[in-house]
Amino acid sequence: THADLKRLELPELRACSYSMIRAKRVPHVMGVEEEAVKLAQRWGADPELARRAGILHDCTKYYELPEQLEICAKYGVELDELEQKAVKLLHSKTGACIAREVFGQPQAVYDAIFWHTTGKADMTTLEKVLYIADYMEPNRDFDGVERLRHLAYTDLDKAMLLGVESTIREMEERGVPVHINTIQARQWLLDRGVKLEE
Amino acid sequence: THADLKRLELPELRACSYSMIRAKRVPHVMGVEEEAVKLAQRWGADPELARRAGILHDCTKYYELPEQLEICAKYGVELDELEQKAVKLLHSKTGACIAREVFGQPQAVYDAIFWHTTGKADMTTLEKVLYIADYMEPNRDFDGVERLRHLAYTDLDKAMLLGVESTIREMEERGVPVHINTIQARQWLLDRGVKLEE
Repeated sequence: THADLKRLELPELRACSYSMIRAKRVPHVMGVEEEAVKLAQRWGADPELARRAGILHDCTKYYELPEQLEICAKYGVELDELEQKAVKLLHSKTGACIAREVFGQPQAVYDAIFWHTTGKADMTTLEKVLYIADYMEPNRDFDGVERLRHLAYTDLDKAMLLGVESTIREMEERGVPVHINTIQARQWLLDRGVKLEE
Repeated sequence: THADLKRLELPELRACSYSMIRAKRVPHVMGVEEEAVKLAQRWGADPELARRAGILHDCTKYYELPEQLEICAKYGVELDELEQKAVKLLHSKTGACIAREVFGQPQAVYDAIFWHTTGKADMTTLEKVLYIADYMEPNRDFDGVERLRHLAYTDLDKAMLLGVESTIREMEERGVPVHINTIQARQWLLDRGVKLEE
Protein backbone atom coordinates (compact mmCIF):
# COMPACT_ATOMS: atom_id res chain seq x y z
CA THR A 1 0.00 0.00 0.00
CA HIS A 2 2.97 2.35 0.33
CA ALA A 3 6.42 2.62 -1.17
CA ASP A 4 8.96 0.34 0.45
CA LEU A 5 11.03 2.92 2.29
CA LYS A 6 13.67 0.30 2.96
CA ARG A 7 14.62 0.03 -0.69
CA LEU A 8 14.55 3.58 -1.98
CA GLU A 9 16.84 4.64 -4.79
CA LEU A 10 19.02 7.64 -4.03
CA PRO A 11 16.79 10.40 -5.49
CA GLU A 12 13.83 9.16 -3.46
CA LEU A 13 15.96 8.73 -0.35
CA ARG A 14 17.16 12.34 -0.70
CA ALA A 15 13.59 13.58 -1.26
CA CYS A 16 12.36 11.80 1.86
CA SER A 17 15.21 13.07 3.98
CA TYR A 18 14.90 16.66 2.73
CA SER A 19 11.14 16.59 3.35
CA MET A 20 11.83 15.89 7.03
CA ILE A 21 14.00 18.99 7.59
CA ARG A 22 13.73 22.73 7.01
CA ALA A 23 14.63 23.97 3.53
CA LYS A 24 17.49 26.08 4.85
CA ARG A 25 19.19 22.88 6.08
CA VAL A 26 19.12 21.12 2.69
CA PRO A 27 22.30 22.68 1.25
CA HIS A 28 24.20 21.52 4.35
CA VAL A 29 22.91 17.96 3.93
CA MET A 30 23.85 18.01 0.23
CA GLY A 31 27.30 19.26 1.19
CA VAL A 32 27.76 16.50 3.76
CA GLU A 33 26.77 13.86 1.22
CA GLU A 34 29.26 15.17 -1.33
CA GLU A 35 32.09 15.58 1.18
CA ALA A 36 31.47 12.22 2.87
CA VAL A 37 31.75 10.41 -0.47
CA LYS A 38 35.06 12.15 -1.25
CA LEU A 39 36.48 11.46 2.20
CA ALA A 40 35.40 7.82 2.01
CA GLN A 41 37.19 7.49 -1.32
CA ARG A 42 40.30 9.08 0.15
CA TRP A 43 40.42 6.87 3.25
CA GLY A 44 39.02 3.54 2.08
CA ALA A 45 35.57 3.67 3.68
CA ASP A 46 32.53 2.55 1.67
CA PRO A 47 31.49 5.59 -0.43
CA GLU A 48 27.94 4.30 -0.88
CA LEU A 49 27.44 3.94 2.87
CA ALA A 50 29.08 7.33 3.41
CA ARG A 51 26.66 8.81 0.88
CA ARG A 52 23.59 7.35 2.55
CA ALA A 53 24.83 8.33 6.00
CA GLY A 54 25.32 11.86 4.67
CA ILE A 55 21.86 12.02 3.14
CA LEU A 56 20.16 10.83 6.33
CA HIS A 57 22.38 12.16 9.10
CA ASP A 58 20.18 15.15 10.05
CA CYS A 59 16.76 13.74 9.15
CA THR A 60 15.42 14.10 12.71
CA LYS A 61 17.20 17.41 13.38
CA TYR A 62 13.91 19.33 13.71
CA TYR A 63 11.93 16.79 15.72
CA GLU A 64 10.80 18.14 19.07
CA LEU A 65 12.11 16.71 22.35
CA PRO A 66 9.08 14.46 23.11
CA GLU A 67 9.27 12.83 19.70
CA GLN A 68 13.04 12.38 20.02
CA LEU A 69 12.55 10.67 23.37
CA GLU A 70 9.77 8.49 22.02
CA ILE A 71 11.95 7.22 19.17
CA CYS A 72 14.76 6.46 21.60
CA ALA A 73 12.38 4.56 23.85
CA LYS A 74 10.89 2.64 20.92
CA TYR A 75 14.27 1.44 19.67
CA GLY A 76 15.84 0.90 23.08
CA VAL A 77 18.45 3.67 22.92
CA GLU A 78 19.69 4.38 26.43
CA LEU A 79 20.22 8.04 27.30
CA ASP A 80 22.30 9.73 29.95
CA GLU A 81 21.13 12.83 31.83
CA LEU A 82 22.67 15.27 29.40
CA GLU A 83 21.12 13.59 26.36
CA GLN A 84 17.61 13.50 27.84
CA LYS A 85 17.42 17.29 27.60
CA ALA A 86 19.35 18.07 24.43
CA VAL A 87 17.75 17.75 20.99
CA LYS A 88 21.20 18.54 19.57
CA LEU A 89 22.51 15.30 21.09
CA LEU A 90 19.33 13.29 20.50
CA HIS A 91 19.03 13.88 16.76
CA SER A 92 22.11 11.74 16.06
CA LYS A 93 20.63 8.81 17.91
CA THR A 94 17.14 9.12 16.48
CA GLY A 95 18.52 9.78 12.99
CA ALA A 96 20.47 6.54 13.28
CA CYS A 97 17.31 4.67 14.32
CA ILE A 98 15.24 6.09 11.48
CA ALA A 99 18.02 5.37 8.96
CA ARG A 100 18.18 1.72 9.99
CA GLU A 101 14.58 0.96 10.94
CA VAL A 102 12.64 3.05 8.44
CA PHE A 103 15.07 3.39 5.56
CA GLY A 104 16.66 -0.05 5.89
CA GLN A 105 20.27 1.10 6.12
CA PRO A 106 22.94 -1.28 7.44
CA GLN A 107 24.46 -1.14 10.92
CA ALA A 108 27.55 0.76 9.71
CA VAL A 109 25.33 3.66 8.54
CA TYR A 110 23.48 3.56 11.87
CA ASP A 111 26.79 3.78 13.74
CA ALA A 112 28.13 6.65 11.63
CA ILE A 113 24.97 8.71 12.18
CA PHE A 114 24.74 7.73 15.85
CA TRP A 115 28.21 9.16 16.61
CA HIS A 116 28.29 12.09 14.21
CA THR A 117 27.71 14.80 16.83
CA THR A 118 29.78 13.69 19.82
CA GLY A 119 32.35 11.36 18.32
CA LYS A 120 33.57 8.57 20.59
CA ALA A 121 36.62 6.47 21.38
CA ASP A 122 37.44 3.74 18.83
CA MET A 123 35.77 5.25 15.78
CA THR A 124 35.70 3.36 12.49
CA THR A 125 36.87 5.14 9.36
CA LEU A 126 33.27 5.56 8.20
CA GLU A 127 32.33 7.15 11.53
CA LYS A 128 35.26 9.56 11.26
CA VAL A 129 34.32 10.38 7.66
CA LEU A 130 30.77 11.45 8.54
CA TYR A 131 31.90 13.37 11.63
CA ILE A 132 34.44 15.37 9.63
CA ALA A 133 32.23 15.83 6.54
CA ASP A 134 29.55 17.31 8.80
CA TYR A 135 32.13 19.71 10.22
CA MET A 136 33.77 21.00 7.04
CA GLU A 137 31.39 20.53 4.08
CA PRO A 138 31.52 23.46 1.64
CA ASN A 139 28.74 25.47 3.34
CA ARG A 140 30.50 25.52 6.71
CA ASP A 141 32.26 28.76 7.56
CA PHE A 142 34.14 29.42 10.79
CA ASP A 143 37.62 30.42 11.91
CA GLY A 144 39.88 27.50 11.13
CA VAL A 145 37.64 25.69 8.65
CA GLU A 146 40.35 25.80 5.96
CA ARG A 147 42.80 24.08 8.28
CA LEU A 148 40.21 21.41 9.02
CA ARG A 149 39.55 20.95 5.28
CA HIS A 150 43.26 20.50 4.67
CA LEU A 151 43.70 17.98 7.51
CA ALA A 152 40.60 16.07 6.42
CA TYR A 153 42.43 14.97 3.27
CA THR A 154 45.96 14.66 4.67
CA ASP A 155 45.52 13.19 8.17
CA LEU A 156 42.06 12.05 9.18
CA ASP A 157 42.98 11.51 12.84
CA LYS A 158 44.45 15.01 13.15
CA ALA A 159 41.26 16.34 11.59
CA MET A 160 39.30 14.39 14.21
CA LEU A 161 41.42 15.85 17.01
CA LEU A 162 40.95 19.38 15.66
CA GLY A 163 37.21 18.73 15.42
CA VAL A 164 36.75 17.43 18.95
CA GLU A 165 39.06 20.05 20.44
CA SER A 166 37.17 22.83 18.65
CA THR A 167 33.89 21.40 19.93
CA ILE A 168 35.20 21.14 23.49
CA ARG A 169 36.56 24.71 23.38
CA GLU A 170 33.28 26.05 22.01
CA MET A 171 31.23 24.25 24.66
CA GLU A 172 33.51 25.54 27.41
CA GLU A 173 33.30 29.11 26.09
CA ARG A 174 29.52 28.85 26.04
CA GLY A 175 29.48 27.31 29.51
CA VAL A 176 27.74 24.19 28.18
CA PRO A 177 28.66 20.73 29.50
CA VAL A 178 30.80 18.66 27.14
CA HIS A 179 29.50 15.18 26.39
CA ILE A 180 31.56 12.35 27.88
CA ASN A 181 31.91 10.66 24.47
CA THR A 182 33.57 13.80 23.07
CA ILE A 183 36.05 13.79 25.97
CA GLN A 184 36.69 10.10 25.34
CA ALA A 185 37.19 10.75 21.63
CA ARG A 186 39.88 13.31 22.46
CA GLN A 187 41.55 11.01 24.98
CA TRP A 188 41.52 8.14 22.50
CA LEU A 189 43.27 10.26 19.87
CA LEU A 190 45.82 11.67 22.34
CA ASP A 191 46.57 8.18 23.69
CA ARG A 192 47.43 7.12 20.18
CA GLY A 193 49.92 9.95 19.78
CA VAL A 194 47.80 12.15 17.51
CA LYS A 195 49.07 15.73 17.78
CA LEU A 196 48.23 19.11 16.32
CA GLU A 197 51.19 21.31 15.45
CA GLU A 198 50.85 24.88 16.64
CA THR B 1 51.41 -1.52 -27.26
CA HIS B 2 50.24 -3.41 -24.17
CA ALA B 3 47.13 -3.58 -22.05
CA ASP B 4 46.75 -0.71 -19.59
CA LEU B 5 47.41 -2.60 -16.37
CA LYS B 6 46.18 0.40 -14.41
CA ARG B 7 42.62 -0.02 -15.60
CA LEU B 8 42.00 -3.74 -15.59
CA GLU B 9 38.54 -5.10 -14.98
CA LEU B 10 38.27 -7.61 -12.14
CA PRO B 11 38.63 -10.85 -14.18
CA GLU B 12 41.83 -9.56 -15.78
CA LEU B 13 43.12 -8.24 -12.47
CA ARG B 14 42.58 -11.68 -10.91
CA ALA B 15 44.25 -13.41 -13.87
CA CYS B 16 47.31 -11.14 -13.61
CA SER B 17 47.59 -11.61 -9.87
CA TYR B 18 47.14 -15.39 -10.03
CA SER B 19 49.76 -15.62 -12.80
CA MET B 20 52.32 -14.09 -10.43
CA ILE B 21 51.90 -16.70 -7.67
CA ARG B 22 52.01 -20.51 -7.40
CA ALA B 23 48.82 -22.35 -8.26
CA LYS B 24 48.53 -23.78 -4.73
CA ARG B 25 48.21 -20.22 -3.40
CA VAL B 26 45.28 -19.25 -5.64
CA PRO B 27 42.49 -20.71 -3.44
CA HIS B 28 43.81 -18.69 -0.50
CA VAL B 29 43.79 -15.47 -2.54
CA MET B 30 40.25 -16.22 -3.72
CA GLY B 31 39.23 -16.82 -0.10
CA VAL B 32 40.76 -13.54 1.04
CA GLU B 33 38.93 -11.63 -1.69
CA GLU B 34 35.59 -13.17 -0.71
CA GLU B 35 36.11 -12.70 3.03
CA ALA B 36 37.46 -9.14 2.69
CA VAL B 37 34.36 -8.07 0.76
CA LYS B 38 32.06 -9.54 3.42
CA LEU B 39 34.00 -7.97 6.27
CA ALA B 40 34.05 -4.60 4.50
CA GLN B 41 30.27 -4.79 4.12
CA ARG B 42 29.92 -5.66 7.81
CA TRP B 43 32.14 -2.83 9.08
CA GLY B 44 31.59 -0.02 6.59
CA ALA B 45 34.85 -0.20 4.64
CA ASP B 46 34.76 0.09 0.84
CA PRO B 47 33.99 -3.43 -0.47
CA GLU B 48 35.46 -2.68 -3.91
CA LEU B 49 38.78 -1.58 -2.38
CA ALA B 50 38.68 -4.57 -0.04
CA ARG B 51 38.12 -6.83 -3.06
CA ARG B 52 41.06 -5.41 -4.99
CA ALA B 53 43.31 -5.47 -1.92
CA GLY B 54 42.35 -9.13 -1.46
CA ILE B 55 43.05 -10.01 -5.10
CA LEU B 56 46.49 -8.37 -5.05
CA HIS B 57 47.67 -8.82 -1.46
CA ASP B 58 50.01 -11.76 -2.13
CA CYS B 59 51.02 -10.98 -5.70
CA THR B 60 54.75 -10.73 -4.84
CA LYS B 61 54.69 -13.59 -2.31
CA TYR B 62 57.01 -15.76 -4.42
CA TYR B 63 59.48 -13.11 -5.53
CA GLU B 64 63.03 -13.83 -4.39
CA LEU B 65 64.80 -11.59 -1.89
CA PRO B 66 66.88 -9.58 -4.43
CA GLU B 67 63.79 -8.72 -6.45
CA GLN B 68 61.88 -7.77 -3.29
CA LEU B 69 64.71 -5.45 -2.27
CA GLU B 70 64.93 -3.95 -5.74
CA ILE B 71 61.22 -3.07 -5.74
CA CYS B 72 61.54 -1.47 -2.30
CA ALA B 73 64.52 0.57 -3.48
CA LYS B 74 62.73 1.62 -6.66
CA TYR B 75 59.68 2.93 -4.79
CA GLY B 76 61.53 4.35 -1.81
CA VAL B 77 60.24 1.93 0.83
CA GLU B 78 62.54 2.13 3.86
CA LEU B 79 63.35 -1.17 5.55
CA ASP B 80 64.56 -2.03 9.03
CA GLU B 81 67.09 -4.77 9.73
CA LEU B 82 64.51 -7.48 10.21
CA GLU B 83 62.70 -6.66 6.99
CA GLN B 84 65.87 -6.69 4.88
CA LYS B 85 66.21 -10.42 5.41
CA ALA B 86 62.61 -11.64 5.47
CA VAL B 87 60.67 -12.25 2.26
CA LYS B 88 57.64 -12.92 4.49
CA LEU B 89 57.78 -9.29 5.67
CA LEU B 90 58.85 -7.84 2.33
CA HIS B 91 56.02 -9.24 0.22
CA SER B 92 53.47 -6.95 1.92
CA LYS B 93 55.49 -3.88 1.06
CA THR B 94 56.31 -4.90 -2.51
CA GLY B 95 52.76 -6.13 -3.09
CA ALA B 96 51.53 -2.69 -2.02
CA CYS B 97 53.94 -1.01 -4.46
CA ILE B 98 52.94 -3.26 -7.37
CA ALA B 99 49.23 -2.76 -6.58
CA ARG B 100 49.57 1.02 -6.68
CA GLU B 101 52.28 1.56 -9.29
CA VAL B 102 51.56 -1.25 -11.76
CA PHE B 103 47.86 -1.91 -11.23
CA GLY B 104 46.85 1.69 -10.47
CA GLN B 105 45.14 1.04 -7.15
CA PRO B 106 44.46 3.94 -4.76
CA GLN B 107 46.47 4.70 -1.63
CA ALA B 108 43.96 2.97 0.66
CA VAL B 109 44.57 -0.35 -1.16
CA TYR B 110 48.34 0.25 -0.94
CA ASP B 111 48.05 0.82 2.82
CA ALA B 112 45.88 -2.26 3.40
CA ILE B 113 48.34 -4.51 1.55
CA PHE B 114 51.37 -2.80 3.10
CA TRP B 115 50.22 -3.62 6.65
CA HIS B 116 48.53 -6.98 6.08
CA THR B 117 51.31 -9.12 7.57
CA THR B 118 52.48 -7.16 10.61
CA GLY B 119 49.54 -4.91 11.42
CA LYS B 120 50.42 -1.57 13.04
CA ALA B 121 49.09 1.00 15.51
CA ASP B 122 46.24 3.18 14.24
CA MET B 123 44.83 0.88 11.58
CA THR B 124 41.95 1.99 9.36
CA THR B 125 38.94 -0.28 9.04
CA LEU B 126 40.06 -1.35 5.55
CA GLU B 127 43.50 -2.28 6.90
CA LYS B 128 41.91 -4.35 9.68
CA VAL B 129 39.58 -6.01 7.18
CA LEU B 130 42.41 -7.28 4.96
CA TYR B 131 44.54 -8.34 7.95
CA ILE B 132 41.69 -10.41 9.39
CA ALA B 133 40.45 -11.78 6.04
CA ASP B 134 43.98 -13.04 5.36
CA TYR B 135 43.98 -14.76 8.74
CA MET B 136 40.61 -16.52 8.68
CA GLU B 137 39.46 -16.96 5.07
CA PRO B 138 37.72 -20.31 4.50
CA ASN B 139 40.90 -22.22 3.54
CA ARG B 140 42.68 -21.35 6.79
CA ASP B 141 42.75 -24.11 9.39
CA PHE B 142 44.42 -23.83 12.77
CA ASP B 143 43.49 -24.15 16.44
CA GLY B 144 41.24 -21.23 17.25
CA VAL B 145 40.27 -20.26 13.70
CA GLU B 146 36.57 -20.63 14.53
CA ARG B 147 36.90 -18.18 17.40
CA LEU B 148 38.64 -15.73 15.09
CA ARG B 149 35.89 -16.16 12.45
CA HIS B 150 33.26 -15.43 15.08
CA LEU B 151 35.04 -12.32 16.41
CA ALA B 152 35.68 -11.03 12.88
CA TYR B 153 31.95 -10.45 12.47
CA THR B 154 31.10 -9.45 16.05
CA ASP B 155 34.05 -7.32 17.24
CA LEU B 156 36.69 -6.40 14.68
CA ASP B 157 39.10 -4.99 17.27
CA LYS B 158 38.92 -8.14 19.39
CA ALA B 159 39.59 -10.14 16.24
CA MET B 160 42.63 -7.92 15.59
CA LEU B 161 43.90 -8.49 19.13
CA LEU B 162 43.45 -12.26 18.79
CA GLY B 163 45.28 -12.11 15.45
CA VAL B 164 48.30 -10.15 16.65
CA GLU B 165 48.51 -12.11 19.92
CA SER B 166 48.42 -15.41 18.01
CA THR B 167 51.15 -14.13 15.70
CA ILE B 168 53.30 -12.98 18.60
CA ARG B 169 52.85 -16.30 20.43
CA GLU B 170 53.72 -18.27 17.30
CA MET B 171 56.84 -16.19 16.64
CA GLU B 172 57.95 -16.61 20.24
CA GLU B 173 57.41 -20.37 20.13
CA ARG B 174 59.45 -20.58 16.96
CA GLY B 175 62.13 -18.33 18.44
CA VAL B 176 61.68 -15.81 15.63
CA PRO B 177 61.86 -12.06 16.33
CA VAL B 178 58.48 -10.30 16.39
CA HIS B 179 58.21 -7.23 14.18
CA ILE B 180 57.93 -3.94 16.06
CA ASN B 181 54.76 -2.97 14.17
CA THR B 182 53.05 -6.12 15.47
CA ILE B 183 54.03 -5.22 19.03
CA GLN B 184 52.72 -1.70 18.44
CA ALA B 185 49.46 -3.04 17.02
CA ARG B 186 48.95 -5.06 20.22
CA GLN B 187 49.80 -2.09 22.43
CA TRP B 188 47.47 0.18 20.48
CA LEU B 189 44.57 -2.25 20.97
CA LEU B 190 45.32 -2.80 24.67
CA ASP B 191 45.61 0.97 25.26
CA ARG B 192 42.12 1.35 23.88
CA GLY B 193 40.72 -1.19 26.31
CA VAL B 194 40.31 -4.06 23.83
CA LYS B 195 40.23 -7.34 25.80
CA LEU B 196 39.90 -11.03 25.05
CA GLU B 197 37.78 -13.01 27.49
CA GLU B 198 39.36 -16.27 28.61
